[in-house]
Amino acid sequence: MFPKNAWYIACTPDELADGPLGRSLCGQRVALYRGAGGQVAALEDFCPHRGAALSLGRVVGDNLMCGYHGLVMGCDGKTVSMPMQRVGGFPCIRSYPVVERHGFVWLWPGDAALADEAAIPALPWSDNPEWAFGGGLYHIGCDYRLMVDNLMDLTHEAYVHVGSIGQDEIDASPVRTRMEGETVVTSRIMQNVTAPPFWQDAMRANGLDPDAPVDRWQISRFTAPSHVLIDVGVALAGKGGFEAAPEYKASAVVVDFMTPETETSHWYFWGMARHFKPEDAALTATIREGQGRIFSQDLDVLEAQQRNLRTFPDRRLLALNIDAGGVQARRIIDRLVQAEKTMTTAADAAEAQLA
Amino acid sequence: MFPKNAWYIACTPDELADGPLGRSLCGQRVALYRGAGGQVAALEDFCPHRGAALSLGRVVGDNLMCGYHGLVMGCDGKTVSMPMQRVGGFPCIRSYPVVERHGFVWLWPGDAALADEAAIPALPWSDNPEWAFGGGLYHIGCDYRLMVDNLMDLTHEAYVHVGSIGQDEIDASPVRTRMEGETVVTSRIMQNVTAPPFWQDAMRANGLDPDAPVDRWQISRFTAPSHVLIDVGVALAGKGGFEAAPEYKASAVVVDFMTPETETSHWYFWGMARHFKPEDAALTATIREGQGRIFSQDLDVLEAQQRNLRTFPDRRLLALNIDAGGVQARRIIDRLVQAEKTMTTAADAAEAQLA
Amino acid sequence: MFPKNAWYIACTPDELADGPLGRSLCGQRVALYRGAGGQVAALEDFCPHRGAALSLGRVVGDNLMCGYHGLVMGCDGKTVSMPMQRVGGFPCIRSYPVVERHGFVWLWPGDAALADEAAIPALPWSDNPEWAFGGGLYHIGCDYRLMVDNLMDLTHEAYVHVGSIGQDEIDASPVRTRMEGETVVTSRIMQNVTAPPFWQDAMRANGLDPDAPVDRWQISRFTAPSHVLIDVGVALAGKGGFEAAPEYKASAVVVDFMTPETETSHWYFWGMARHFKPEDAALTATIREGQGRIFSQDLDVLEAQQRNLRTFPDRRLLALNIDAGGVQARRIIDRLVQAEKTMTTAADAAEAQLA
Repeated sequence: MFPKNAWYIACTPDELADGPLGRSLCGQRVALYRGAGGQVAALEDFCPHRGAALSLGRVVGDNLMCGYHGLVMGCDGKTVSMPMQRVGGFPCIRSYPVVERHGFVWLWPGDAALADEAAIPALPWSDNPEWAFGGGLYHIGCDYRLMVDNLMDLTHEAYVHVGSIGQDEIDASPVRTRMEGETVVTSRIMQNVTAPPFWQDAMRANGLDPDAPVDRWQISRFTAPSHVLIDVGVALAGKGGFEAAPEYKASAVVVDFMTPETETSHWYFWGMARHFKPEDAALTATIREGQGRIFSQDLDVLEAQQRNLRTFPDRRLLALNIDAGGVQARRIIDRLVQAEKTMTTAADAAEAQLA
Repeated sequence: MFPKNAWYIACTPDELADGPLGRSLCGQRVALYRGAGGQVAALEDFCPHRGAALSLGRVVGDNLMCGYHGLVMGCDGKTVSMPMQRVGGFPCIRSYPVVERHGFVWLWPGDAALADEAAIPALPWSDNPEWAFGGGLYHIGCDYRLMVDNLMDLTHEAYVHVGSIGQDEIDASPVRTRMEGETVVTSRIMQNVTAPPFWQDAMRANGLDPDAPVDRWQISRFTAPSHVLIDVGVALAGKGGFEAAPEYKASAVVVDFMTPETETSHWYFWGMARHFKPEDAALTATIREGQGRIFSQDLDVLEAQQRNLRTFPDRRLLALNIDAGGVQARRIIDRLVQAEKTMTTAADAAEAQLA
Repeated sequence: MFPKNAWYIACTPDELADGPLGRSLCGQRVALYRGAGGQVAALEDFCPHRGAALSLGRVVGDNLMCGYHGLVMGCDGKTVSMPMQRVGGFPCIRSYPVVERHGFVWLWPGDAALADEAAIPALPWSDNPEWAFGGGLYHIGCDYRLMVDNLMDLTHEAYVHVGSIGQDEIDASPVRTRMEGETVVTSRIMQNVTAPPFWQDAMRANGLDPDAPVDRWQISRFTAPSHVLIDVGVALAGKGGFEAAPEYKASAVVVDFMTPETETSHWYFWGMARHFKPEDAALTATIREGQGRIFSQDLDVLEAQQRNLRTFPDRRLLALNIDAGGVQARRIIDRLVQAEKTMTTAADAAEAQLA
C-alpha cells in the first residue's frame, strides 16, 4: 500500500562507492550504480540474457556489465553489447528515474513519464555550512506506515526512549495536528521543563547551562509519500522557544525517510541535522551513535506490532487525538494510491479504445 | 489438536522476575506478569490502542503499562488509564485465568467460566522438605502429542539414552498399560539388574553400593491435557522395588508438562523431583544438568519425526503394545477436544434460540 | 523437473564412515548406510513404527536399527526384528538401488526394476594410477539445470572467475556445440594465449614454463541426467593442443555431478581429475582448495539467478549460441521426463485393463 509515482530514497551515495548495489524497493528488485561520469543509474536487477542479478556485476564506463557472461547494459535499460553477440534484438529491461540530491539517491518507482525532479523535497540544511548532518539506515520488518504513525506521535518517547529523549512532561502536554497545504503537522510544546539527558548534552555542547529550565518543542511534518521531518529542540525558558535567537537554544531536525521494501518491511533512513556547532565532527559522531541506539528501540516495538497486526488482521485499532498525525498521513497515502489506480484504469480504457 | 478448557503451565515464576513475559501458548499470544501485590496475571499480548505487544511494556502496580504510548491495562483486560485520554470506551482485551501453584504458573486458555483451580494437579513433593526439585524448559518443534508418546513408552531409553539411563534390560521387560480412572498408567519393572550410570550415581549419592543388583521401575502416568509424571527408581534387589523402605532405594519423579505453542511446536517443562538427599543443592544441580542433556537427545529425534510426519501425512503409524500408553492418552485428548466442539455447538444453538 | 529413472550421486563414501546419513535426494528423504559386510544400502528415511528418521539410528550388521525404539530394518525395506514384537505384518518401506563405484555412491530414485548398473557412467581416471582426483560437495539453492547451463557455457569464467581461470581470450573465441550420440559437447579452443593463473600454476607443477604461449581448450560434455565432464588444459602453443604429447601439456577433467534435492536446490559434487603429477598429494590438496574457492563464486551468482527467476516467472530468457549446450541438455532432460510420464500413463492403463 504505497504510491509508486513518488520519489523515495534508494540509498546513500556511500553505498555505491564499492560498486553496484542490489536492493528491493517498493516491491521491485533494483540495481543501483554510479557510472564513470559520476551519474547514478538504476535498473531492474535482471539480466535479459539468463536472468542473473546485474548488481553482482561491475561498472564499465557508464554501463553495468553483467558478472555472469559479460552482457553490457546501458543505463537506459538497453543492452549495449555482449562479446561476439548482436544485441539489437535483446529485450529491454526497466530503467528508473534516479536523482542524487541532498546527500541521498532518490528513485521514482512508478511511471517514468511523470517523474519530476522539482518534486524532490528541499532539505534546506543539506548544502548549508551552518548545519551538520549525521544519519544511518535500518531495515525494519514492518509496514512503513507504522513508522509514520510512530514519528507523527512522539508521545512514545516518554515510554520507548526513557533515559535519553523521553520525559514525563511529554504526556502532560497536548498535541495539535493541523494541515499546512499537503503537509500534516503535529506539534507539542513543553514549557518551563528540565531538559532530558539527550538535550542536556546538546545544551552543554552549545555552551548553555544544562540544568536551566527550558521550553521544548517537537514539530513533526509529514509529506507524501513517506517523509517525516521533525523540528526538535530546547530554548532557555521564556526566550521564544522554537523562535528563540540561536544563542539561547539547541535545535535540530530529525530526518526520517521510509522506503517500502515489501508490504510489511521497509528501509528506514534516519538522521539528525543540527543547527549548532556544525564544525564539531566528534559531536556529529556522538549524536549519530546516540540516535542510532534510540531508534533501534523503536525497531523492536514496531516489529512486534507488525506481528500482532498479522495475527489479528480484523481487529480495529483506536484513532485517538495523539494519533491524528498518522491518521491524516494515511489519508493522503490512501488518496494517492487510489488516484494511481484510477489513472491506470483510465489509461487502460484509452488503450482499449485505440485498439 | 488440544483441549482448551484445561490448565497448562505457562511459565515458571523466575521467568517473571525481570518484568513481563510474552509467550505463544495454545495458539494465542499471551503477556504474563507479576503485579506489585505479588499476583500473577495473563492478558492477550495486544494493546487495544495500536496493537503493540503489551509484554514489551512494564508493570505498574497491579497493571501492565504498554511500552509504546503508556496505556495502562488492568489485569482484567480493561484499560485503566492513558495519559490525557478518556478510556471508558476502549475495547477490552482477553484476560486469562492464571494460578501460581507448586512452583509453576498455570494458565487456562479456554472458557474462563469453566476454570476451576481444584483441577490443577496436586504435586505432592512441591511443598515437602523431604523432596528436592530441579528442572528446565525446552522449546521443541513438534506436536506435544509426540512427546506424550515418547514419555508413555520409555522403551526409547535403551536407544536414545545409551550411557545414562538406557540399559538393555528395558527391552527385555514387558510393559503394562492400564487405566486408573482418567489416568493412563504404563509400567515396566526390571528385576535383579545392574543400575545404569545415572542410577548408579544416585545410589552412590544415597549411600548405596552402585554395583549391587537392583530392581528398577518406571511408572508413567498421563493425565489430561498433557501431563506425564513418571515414578522412577532403583531398590536393592528383593527389597520391595517401588515399595521398598527408603534406606534401600533411590527414587524420583520425572516431571513432564507439555504446553502446546502451535499444532507442531510446544513448550516442554521438564524436571525431576527426588526423594533422597533433598538438602543437597549441588546434587540437584548435577541431576538437573544431566537430565537436561538426556532430554535434549529426545529433541533431535522428535523434531525429525515431526518433519517426517509432515512429509508423509497419509502414512499410518503402527500402534504396538509398547505404544498403548500414547494411544490411550490420545483417546482421552480426542474425547476432550470433541466434547469442546459439541459444547461450542450447543452454546451457539442456545444463543441462536435466544436471538 | 528431473528424470527419476537414472543414476544420481547420493554421497561420497567418506560421508558414511561415521554411521548412517540422511539426505533429501530428488524430492525424497533417503537414509544411506554401509552395512558390516561393506555393502552400501539406501532406504526411505522413515521408520514404519512411528515415523522416526532411520538415519538417526545405527548400523547393526547389514541392517539399520531405528534410534528411537530399536526396530531393525533390512536393506530391502522389510523389518527384520523389534524387541518383543512380531514384525511379520509391519509395512515395508522403500529401498533404493544403490551402487558404490568410481569413488561415489550412485542412487536410482525411480523404478527399481529398470535400474541397470551398466548405465553408470565410466569414469576412466578413477582406478588409474596415472590420474589423481580431489573434489568436494556444495549445497546450492538453485534448480540443478542452472548449474548445467553454467557448465555448458564456460564464457562465464571470464567474468565470474577473474584472477584464476578467467581470461579475456575466452570471450574472443567462438564456442561450438554438437551432439555425439546422446552426449552434448560444447568446445572452445584458444590458440597462442598466455595461460591464466590457475593454469600457470599447473604448468609450473608440471615442469613447463608458465609464461610460454599455450593453446588452451575447454570441452564440456553433458550426459543425462545431469553429469558434466569437462576436458580442460593447456599445451605449449603449436604442440597439438588437447592432442599434444603429455610432456607438452597440463590437462585435467573437471568433474560435475548435480543431484536435485528439490525443484530449486541441488547437491553439487565437484572435483578435478588431473593427468599430471598424480602422486603429488599436496598438489591435489592445493588444486582442490583453489577449485572450491572458484566454484563458490558460482554459488552466489546461481542463487541470485534462481531468486530472479522466482520473482519473474513469466519472463523468457535468451538462448544465444553460447547457450546452445545448456539448451540441448534441457531438451534431453525434457524428453526423458516426458517419456517417464508416458510410461507411467501406459502402465496405469495396462493396470486398469487388468482390473
